[in-house]
Amino acid sequence: MSSHVRTVRPNQMVALMERAAHIKKMLEQGEKKPYKDVIDVCWGDPHGAGMKPLTFVRQVLAACIYPQLLDGGNLPMDVKRRAQKLLRWCDGGSVGSYTNTGGILEIVENLAQFISQRDGVPAHPENIWIHPGSQTSLTSILTLLLSSEATPKRGVLVPVPGHSTVPLSVAALGGVAAPYFLDEERGWELRADELRRALASARGVCRPVALYVINPGNPTGHVQSRKSMEEVIRFVAENNLFLLADEVYQGSVYDANSEFVSYKKRLYELGPPLAHTLELASFHSASKGLLGECGLRGGYVELLNMDPVVMPYVERLFHLIPSPPVTGQIALELMVEPPQPGDPSYPLYMHETEHTRRTLVDNVKRVLQVLNRLPAISCQPVRGGAFAFPRLHLTTKAIRKAKDAGMQPDMFYCTKLLEDTGVFVSPGCEYGQKEGTYHIRFCIMTPTDTMEELLRRLSAFHLKFMKDLS
Amino acid sequence: MSSHVRTVRPNQMVALMERAAHIKKMLEQGEKKPYKDVIDVCWGDPHGAGMKPLTFVRQVLAACIYPQLLDGGNLPMDVKRRAQKLLRWCDGGSVGSYTNTGGILEIVENLAQFISQRDGVPAHPENIWIHPGSQTSLTSILTLLLSSEATPKRGVLVPVPGHSTVPLSVAALGGVAAPYFLDEERGWELRADELRRALASARGVCRPVALYVINPGNPTGHVQSRKSMEEVIRFVAENNLFLLADEVYQGSVYDANSEFVSYKKRLYELGPPLAHTLELASFHSASKGLLGECGLRGGYVELLNMDPVVMPYVERLFHLIPSPPVTGQIALELMVEPPQPGDPSYPLYMHETEHTRRTLVDNVKRVLQVLNRLPAISCQPVRGGAFAFPRLHLTTKAIRKAKDAGMQPDMFYCTKLLEDTGVFVSPGCEYGQKEGTYHIRFCIMTPTDTMEELLRRLSAFHLKFMKDLS
Repeated sequence: MSSHVRTVRPNQMVALMERAAHIKKMLEQGEKKPYKDVIDVCWGDPHGAGMKPLTFVRQVLAACIYPQLLDGGNLPMDVKRRAQKLLRWCDGGSVGSYTNTGGILEIVENLAQFISQRDGVPAHPENIWIHPGSQTSLTSILTLLLSSEATPKRGVLVPVPGHSTVPLSVAALGGVAAPYFLDEERGWELRADELRRALASARGVCRPVALYVINPGNPTGHVQSRKSMEEVIRFVAENNLFLLADEVYQGSVYDANSEFVSYKKRLYELGPPLAHTLELASFHSASKGLLGECGLRGGYVELLNMDPVVMPYVERLFHLIPSPPVTGQIALELMVEPPQPGDPSYPLYMHETEHTRRTLVDNVKRVLQVLNRLPAISCQPVRGGAFAFPRLHLTTKAIRKAKDAGMQPDMFYCTKLLEDTGVFVSPGCEYGQKEGTYHIRFCIMTPTDTMEELLRRLSAFHLKFMKDLS
Repeated sequence: MSSHVRTVRPNQMVALMERAAHIKKMLEQGEKKPYKDVIDVCWGDPHGAGMKPLTFVRQVLAACIYPQLLDGGNLPMDVKRRAQKLLRWCDGGSVGSYTNTGGILEIVENLAQFISQRDGVPAHPENIWIHPGSQTSLTSILTLLLSSEATPKRGVLVPVPGHSTVPLSVAALGGVAAPYFLDEERGWELRADELRRALASARGVCRPVALYVINPGNPTGHVQSRKSMEEVIRFVAENNLFLLADEVYQGSVYDANSEFVSYKKRLYELGPPLAHTLELASFHSASKGLLGECGLRGGYVELLNMDPVVMPYVERLFHLIPSPPVTGQIALELMVEPPQPGDPSYPLYMHETEHTRRTLVDNVKRVLQVLNRLPAISCQPVRGGAFAFPRLHLTTKAIRKAKDAGMQPDMFYCTKLLEDTGVFVSPGCEYGQKEGTYHIRFCIMTPTDTMEELLRRLSAFHLKFMKDLS
């Protein structure tokens, strides 16, 4: 067995997940609990949490899957036209055919056009690859950057807190995930001085080759300012790193004073030589934002300023990844080419997306209102992304109690929260956090009433928990 | 950049693929050629080659994607019931939700039941993982088995001819793909003496840890006998190897005297201690057989007799693979749970599957009839799988001509065949072959008239090619 596989640590979430699944089943089978259902806000899974898919997206997909629907009178004209166009792009007119390994050419071209319009900077189809989700894209790029037999080991700077799959993937590929800490007190800001500290510290154990950033943040919900992005870019350039920009939450900004700016756009604003030299991979996905189609598996990566010597290897490596699911590719296409004014589907599409936008902005407002009024819990502004990541100010007694149970303090809190109230959130220890601090993460992409019920149960539990363990 | 990535050789097929795409486009734009279309039988892609998807599969999928279809009167009752059941298995009742990383539990349980019934041997859900295609499953298992920093390097015995992605994946993971040759003269039989020779030879350059077999074969179309399977099993056991059994063509046997037997079943027929010790991974997919849903991306692996010390690592590793596309998972479910007698969809399902079966059996018969009557081409029986792999007996002049063009002789043949006739097949050099032998591979999963037209064009081209270069 590969020794790197041995370094992959067990996923501590599995026990909690299994417990949540068990409670759900018990409730379905009629068992009596003080709550009627499990509110599952553990993942960034809007449909799972009760949000509705967009009608236009599902109608086009259904017609592509079962083209006989094109003959009936039940689908809007623009849905039919769109499905017909998409089917012309599929070999044999079937979504059951393989596509190019990097995705259907016409869809890749439309992604390039979307990026060009977003950034005001040209994007080229030959630098864009569709994969079964952005995580596959990221792993592929990591495979290029890392090398298990290198001495010293190659390193990737990763944010703490941050999504656990990144350090896990780095470790599985024989690299070292070197942490840099986000500044909670400043709304989870990414600070250049901390990047420098982290790099210096990493150099003791590995040779850092890349910096991974996620903006808007997961789990933190921060949105980087132009100034912060410039600092990151200059840091990356000065230290000859590769910039991995996870931008899957680009469609999810809730704060009126924040704006998503892509790293590519910021780079071009700074002009040459940076704009023409900094090696950048930017990731996006149909799983997030207004679509929330996690289950269809569609993501892409755009590469910028790659060494032309390396590009053929990228192509060879990407040819090893089987062609991405066609339904996920179609979701990406519909994400970047929504209905336009005048299209029959436009009014409903606008109504649905506006409703979702308003729901999420309201949810975020309510979360901050409710949590920041409670004792011993505090939440930084959620400017973007899919999650709230409030801090728990646990008592010594609570921490001791957790230790007695053999758990991290916030895992102990999450476990009890689930058992007592059916609210299923994840603990900060899953994402990494400054020593002695504790957090929980939950998805804010839920219907309004789900969020209200969640906040009701969480508030009542929190007050009791803190009182019992004061 | 990782040094293993450098070992991934360029895909020589890319130029041919690009040329085929170009010719298709030219024809669409009205350019005059001696043929009206490109017949693309290069891949094992039945829908791409003109086969129709199964109505039941597409109706259930469409209803799962767009549940409003359940309200109308246009779908059969059993389709609706099935879609409703499947949606209950999805979080939030949406195919847009994430699932377990190894797949929806209920579907995994049904896969276990399918395997149990197929083999008459129990199968356990906890040993089965759904992935976005069987190739992802295979790569994951290879990740476990191989170790780039091991000295000597780890090796996997792979068939020649064989699908190129296996040796490419082995190389990309830092392992050595050590070839064993299939015996063309005996209908591409897998011979135990050749396995022993290959193992001895491999030991000079690596430490072999696994044997990869594909049955029914790709590109060869052979179907292993029980005797041959027993020889393989004993060879694997004697040499302490891991058996990777690619069984994705298990639903594709055309020869009345051949039968697909799974390695698991054969192992249990041989009884203990083998049945309880031999480490086996078996792969299957919704891309092949009667469904042919390549574009939906659904495959699975069943593991048997894994070292209990290793299993936790398998689970950790598999947790790093994002959840597989839900539409692909549904395709797998419908593959193993087709309509039953009495269901409204049963008659049409039987009609469509019978029609496909008959078409493929007839295609295979015609291919052998036509090709084996031509001079300088010979084709072994196609007992199963998706491909014919005839041998070209090229003249010295043809071989010299190819060399002058800087191409492998069979690549030269394929290139000219494409240019002159629009028939797009792949060359034997892509799969490996005994030195001095040349082949072409093409998919036999096409409608009857496509196959007839293909054989017409191929025959005429072949006769002219051989005459011109005699």
